[in-house]
Amino acid sequence: MKGRTEIAELGEFGLIDHLTAKFQNKNKSTICGVGDDAAVIEASKDKAVVVSTDAMLEGVDFDLTYFPPKHLGYKVVTKGISDVVAMNAVPEQITLSLGISSKLSVEFLDDFYEGVEFACKEAGVDLVGGDTSASVTGFIINITAVGRAKKSEISYRSGAKEHDLICLTGNLGASYMGLRLLERERRVLQGLGDAVTPKFEGYEYLLERYLKPRARYDMVESLRKEGIVPTSMIDITDGLASEVLQICKSSKCGARIYLERMPLAKQTTALAEEMNIDPVIAALNGGEDYELLFTVPLELREKIVNLGCIDIIGHITAESTGAALVTPDGSTIALQAQGFTPKTTAKE
Amino acid sequence: MKGRTEIAELGEFGLIDHLTAKFQNKNKSTICGVGDDAAVIEASKDKAVVVSTDAMLEGVDFDLTYFPPKHLGYKVVTKGISDVVAMNAVPEQITLSLGISSKLSVEFLDDFYEGVEFACKEAGVDLVGGDTSASVTGFIINITAVGRAKKSEISYRSGAKEHDLICLTGNLGASYMGLRLLERERRVLQGLGDAVTPKFEGYEYLLERYLKPRARYDMVESLRKEGIVPTSMIDITDGLASEVLQICKSSKCGARIYLERMPLAKQTTALAEEMNIDPVIAALNGGEDYELLFTVPLELREKIVNLGCIDIIGHITAESTGAALVTPDGSTIALQAQGFTPKTTAKE
Repeated sequence: MKGRTEIAELGEFGLIDHLTAKFQNKNKSTICGVGDDAAVIEASKDKAVVVSTDAMLEGVDFDLTYFPPKHLGYKVVTKGISDVVAMNAVPEQITLSLGISSKLSVEFLDDFYEGVEFACKEAGVDLVGGDTSASVTGFIINITAVGRAKKSEISYRSGAKEHDLICLTGNLGASYMGLRLLERERRVLQGLGDAVTPKFEGYEYLLERYLKPRARYDMVESLRKEGIVPTSMIDITDGLASEVLQICKSSKCGARIYLERMPLAKQTTALAEEMNIDPVIAALNGGEDYELLFTVPLELREKIVNLGCIDIIGHITAESTGAALVTPDGSTIALQAQGFTPKTTAKE
Repeated sequence: MKGRTEIAELGEFGLIDHLTAKFQNKNKSTICGVGDDAAVIEASKDKAVVVSTDAMLEGVDFDLTYFPPKHLGYKVVTKGISDVVAMNAVPEQITLSLGISSKLSVEFLDDFYEGVEFACKEAGVDLVGGDTSASVTGFIINITAVGRAKKSEISYRSGAKEHDLICLTGNLGASYMGLRLLERERRVLQGLGDAVTPKFEGYEYLLERYLKPRARYDMVESLRKEGIVPTSMIDITDGLASEVLQICKSSKCGARIYLERMPLAKQTTALAEEMNIDPVIAALNGGEDYELLFTVPLELREKIVNLGCIDIIGHITAESTGAALVTPDGSTIALQAQGFTPKTTAKE
């Protein structure tokens, strides 16, 4: 009889590697399978369709006690299309598959779809299909996003080369701090009824980054205008550390990230200080930033600087050097990834 | 303040219509959106990619006390690619998104993926991506299937014309009776320990149809060889009645289905008799047959008969006549659809 191996022993990334190791692609139309932000499928001689799928589960990925359904609808679209954008492709369609419990009303779903519709309009994507099931255990959302790109313009995780610049859009850690703020206020309010309102003043930006993040589809357009095709790209969903390690693993390279170049918003550092959290930890391991991390050859530095909204936070090194954070005094700290481990109890 | 409308008041199909009414497609590449088995997206001048998504939830769509993980892996692939097949397209890729609870072991997932791999090999499809999340509430599976077809060969639900023949592959109700058998044996065994084994002899076919159904991708090939493009097509997942009504709604037509032409397997009628169930009800409302229901012009009757494995069970009529079952004495019974209604308690 077989023994029992706990999933936690392998971790999320180990589990995926383990489960998909045996699979081999057979169809000519499969250009890229498991192991990137999205699968790449041939559309025509020079064009490809990219497809990505993501789940969001109540009690794990969101808590309906403080997540307004309209924002949730918006955020799930962001989560889906961000993976398409991370391939340097233009998102064009999504499908939604929902597991709906009897706790939810039609009015709740109306609000949820209003958020979906708003995000779709903003990003120029069509909702083209879906599936609804009864759920016995809360709200379950699955999004599949489809996009298009010229084959020659797709950015995989695997193309980073030594000396490439490591570039980052936006700032990090704000979404994580927004979540921490919501959790703190929920605890403060528990049992106090309507007499007390949560204290969010001065931290509205953090809430927006957590509840209503926008995917960086604008960057696909900006990069194209400048004629830049990143040698590798990934979106920040599990925190900077995890994403840098993914690129290093796929591209068989190392990386150096400079601590003092880590872009942090003022509200992020302010709340982190208030809550005694190291903002760098929020940036490295927080996740759900939906910003883009990408690499370009050194000679494109000026073009990147001219784009104006991108930080160059480090560079690619030889594989043997590993991936590390460089502190202002020049010492290095090895980057460590965080994946999920299954939870044993419900949060409720 | 808004009132609260229960989802059960609208029903599954009413809910989908309600939620998606406001959405309009904007992208040129969106050929067909919500409302068919799969979305149709332009690939090149004459080719299209079709995309479909489906969820399977523990406690709703399957019960792990009698569903072996290997079969579950096989069945979820069938469920996904059956929608692609129902567009008359060739399935080529799938992605899997899993919600995994700590109750599940690595060995369980190994078995599950073995079933996935077996089904993929058999159908010639590639597993190209996925997502894994922690689930606090059981095993959650979402499959997205991608296929390809010439635009001119895609069968929508909306193309059926008056006088078209209504055709059906295979037989109906076997999967439903397989499920009823498993549920009966589980009840019989509850509390009796290992001393008693379930009684499945003589009904192995029904178990296979429920636990390990095969999608009819063979039919896409057969139809193509004969030069037949169905005027409409749908796969049988919610029972014949529901699927006939879907075609009638999309094609703005009526239908007559002849009771005596309903294909039923011997084991289906035998177990139905034993359990005092009307086998016609199993066929009409049972679902999960993964057979294909399609329409062709009257003049293709001989070609269809020559294919050898297809029953002509009725014909398309004018919209005003509605969709009905015709009994041997010539009387008609209006067909009624069944969708899900959210469950209020977990099965466990």
